[in-house]
Amino acid sequence: MDVRFARRMAGMRASEIRELLKFTERPEVISLAGGLPAPEFFPTHDLNAAVTSVLKENGRKALQYSTTEGHPPLRRWIAERMNERLGTCVRPEEVLITSASQQGLDLTGRVLLDEGDEVLCEGPTYLGAISAFRAYQPRFVEVPTDDDGMVIVELERRLEQCGRAKLVYVVPDFQNPSGRTWSLARRRALVEVARRHDVVIIEDNPYSEVRFAGEHLPAIKSLDEDGRTVFLGTFSKILAPGIRVGWVAAPPAILDKYVLAKQGADLHTSTLTQMMLAAYLEHFDLDANLARVREAYRARRNAMVRALEREMPPDVRFTRPSGGLFLWVELPEGVDTRKLLEVCLTHDVAFVPGEPFFPNGGHANTLRLNYSNMPEARIEEGVRRLAAALRELLARARHPREPVPELTVSV
Amino acid sequence: MDVRFARRMAGMRASEIRELLKFTERPEVISLAGGLPAPEFFPTHDLNAAVTSVLKENGRKALQYSTTEGHPPLRRWIAERMNERLGTCVRPEEVLITSASQQGLDLTGRVLLDEGDEVLCEGPTYLGAISAFRAYQPRFVEVPTDDDGMVIVELERRLEQCGRAKLVYVVPDFQNPSGRTWSLARRRALVEVARRHDVVIIEDNPYSEVRFAGEHLPAIKSLDEDGRTVFLGTFSKILAPGIRVGWVAAPPAILDKYVLAKQGADLHTSTLTQMMLAAYLEHFDLDANLARVREAYRARRNAMVRALEREMPPDVRFTRPSGGLFLWVELPEGVDTRKLLEVCLTHDVAFVPGEPFFPNGGHANTLRLNYSNMPEARIEEGVRRLAAALRELLARARHPREPVPELTVSV
Repeated sequence: MDVRFARRMAGMRASEIRELLKFTERPEVISLAGGLPAPEFFPTHDLNAAVTSVLKENGRKALQYSTTEGHPPLRRWIAERMNERLGTCVRPEEVLITSASQQGLDLTGRVLLDEGDEVLCEGPTYLGAISAFRAYQPRFVEVPTDDDGMVIVELERRLEQCGRAKLVYVVPDFQNPSGRTWSLARRRALVEVARRHDVVIIEDNPYSEVRFAGEHLPAIKSLDEDGRTVFLGTFSKILAPGIRVGWVAAPPAILDKYVLAKQGADLHTSTLTQMMLAAYLEHFDLDANLARVREAYRARRNAMVRALEREMPPDVRFTRPSGGLFLWVELPEGVDTRKLLEVCLTHDVAFVPGEPFFPNGGHANTLRLNYSNMPEARIEEGVRRLAAALRELLARARHPREPVPELTVSV
Repeated sequence: MDVRFARRMAGMRASEIRELLKFTERPEVISLAGGLPAPEFFPTHDLNAAVTSVLKENGRKALQYSTTEGHPPLRRWIAERMNERLGTCVRPEEVLITSASQQGLDLTGRVLLDEGDEVLCEGPTYLGAISAFRAYQPRFVEVPTDDDGMVIVELERRLEQCGRAKLVYVVPDFQNPSGRTWSLARRRALVEVARRHDVVIIEDNPYSEVRFAGEHLPAIKSLDEDGRTVFLGTFSKILAPGIRVGWVAAPPAILDKYVLAKQGADLHTSTLTQMMLAAYLEHFDLDANLARVREAYRARRNAMVRALEREMPPDVRFTRPSGGLFLWVELPEGVDTRKLLEVCLTHDVAFVPGEPFFPNGGHANTLRLNYSNMPEARIEEGVRRLAAALRELLARARHPREPVPELTVSV
């Protein structure tokens, strides 16, 4: 039959990253494209002990329906952790457990966005947020961003031009894809501007605890005194993404709506994984594990930065993140990173072209690299192949009559 | 701050059942209100063995991101089971794993419904479907339903009057809340009518494997030859709801849209719980466990039916389900079951009033009873208290000047 789908589906396309991953499954390909945490640090043994204790002592509860809001000890742990590490003042009842922060993004769209509402975001911004919000048919307004965060005068100018600005979406710590972190001054300025223009701030914070250099900065939510910041957190990068547990922290009047929206979306997040996680956090050492993760990511980031400095032409710019999983590369104007990716696949290396991270397109000369998921030697070899592919593409551009190899790969 | 929420939130209210459960937590209350499977049959020991084997042998994979579509062995098991038990012809790649069937309902709304589209449904229908669909602002068109399912001429008449009929939503086996099951003739007729009017059928099937009397009937999906049926399944009632694993089975052109919608909604369902479930299904005996569940539910249903026959006035009608968790009661016209619930709470017994199961309201004289979650003696005592409360309410109606006790409970 010829189904008449909802209009919103016209704007929803397969995630470029996930489609791409399908082409990089050949073992000879070095994929700098994904966003996977290093699985060798997943505490499988301790999580097994945690889940076993839960099923033995509390199995009937762990396998039964539970409240939408989430497992109370887990909500308490999260509130305490946020207050201790991020300077916030969150009560456990202001925390809703979600099926990781992708669901936090989806619920944000559901609770706040009518068709045509304006979402202000960084350029580039997180691809998962673009795809979550797009289901609610907003208009994306990109705000130019430098190494300290959104350029605040540009944000203000756009807010003044907006007719229906609803929220400002930011990833202030080690952003995916850019690896950039907002300065304290920009965080304060954002809160002030949001207050003046009466818009909600969505602070998406999966990475702040994956800092391997410099000092922790307070969360934007900790600087906001009139309760307009919704904070999205997740265990995906500090523990393991496969359990799909994250959270939303927001003032009660806002959180109530998220709870209602989640009730309709999936009733509640797995009782079993929530209780396993609470038992793990009570009886095992998350921080010791996280210290190992940070150390590994620091070494991998260093390997990637050194390789880029060594291999890339001098007019290639890239970020040097102090945490997180990603690094952002700007090639000279005129280089199309989708074409570069085609050449790269013949060199057995992959990355994600930058354009999809800009909801309104453009910036074809940018790309994202991931360094969290492989040892240093492989990162270095990957960057070498990337640089060789770039040289090949640039040489071809100078000698356009040379035949371009036929590729059937459609990325 | 005074947040401007999305317009859709105006139609979303707290689920009456879940709010109500808060009042029934006192241990002296016999709650016939919930919809909880019997936890004493959860195979906690076997599930622990399954999750332990997964974490020991495959921990890195089980804790990592995975594909939106779901764990391939689980998709294969589901396709085989459906084909064997329900007469369908589903391939594994036509199965999408969801965060239980509540998410299947939400994705259905997202993929199919624009504001103002018409959803045809049974009256009464499943409360979770009403709350999931309501986020997409459709118009609900209730179709009168008798003991054999929707009255097909009434369905046709409404389809002819509809301008934007998009889907027919049905729970054909042991429906929540009515306990009714569609006859084979009605199933065939629905497929034929849906074809003529070119609408999608959503077959929500959480209960068909919880049949404790009579013969299995083929799924509506098995009778549909032109691929217009989307089937929603779940492990919540055949194994355990706390793991939140269910599925959507649909033709590829439709399933692709569900996959896209799920990508934006939560990326994928927990890899760990999917792999635990696949290991359990491979190494342990779901059917032996399910046989114990059916046996217990049969005894509990019998206890409730006998108690209702014994205790209730002769003009009270109720269904006698051959499976599932619920039974539906119609009191004489003029009795308001919300008022009855207030009296019941003073008798320490609770149920769910029927009106919320009708998306357009009315039918204040109906109510839903659950029999799956307590032993027979408690069910019988619960029905005794319910009957006593009903007698009290009816007596009061005959002597209206007697003072009504003040209740501060707001249900």
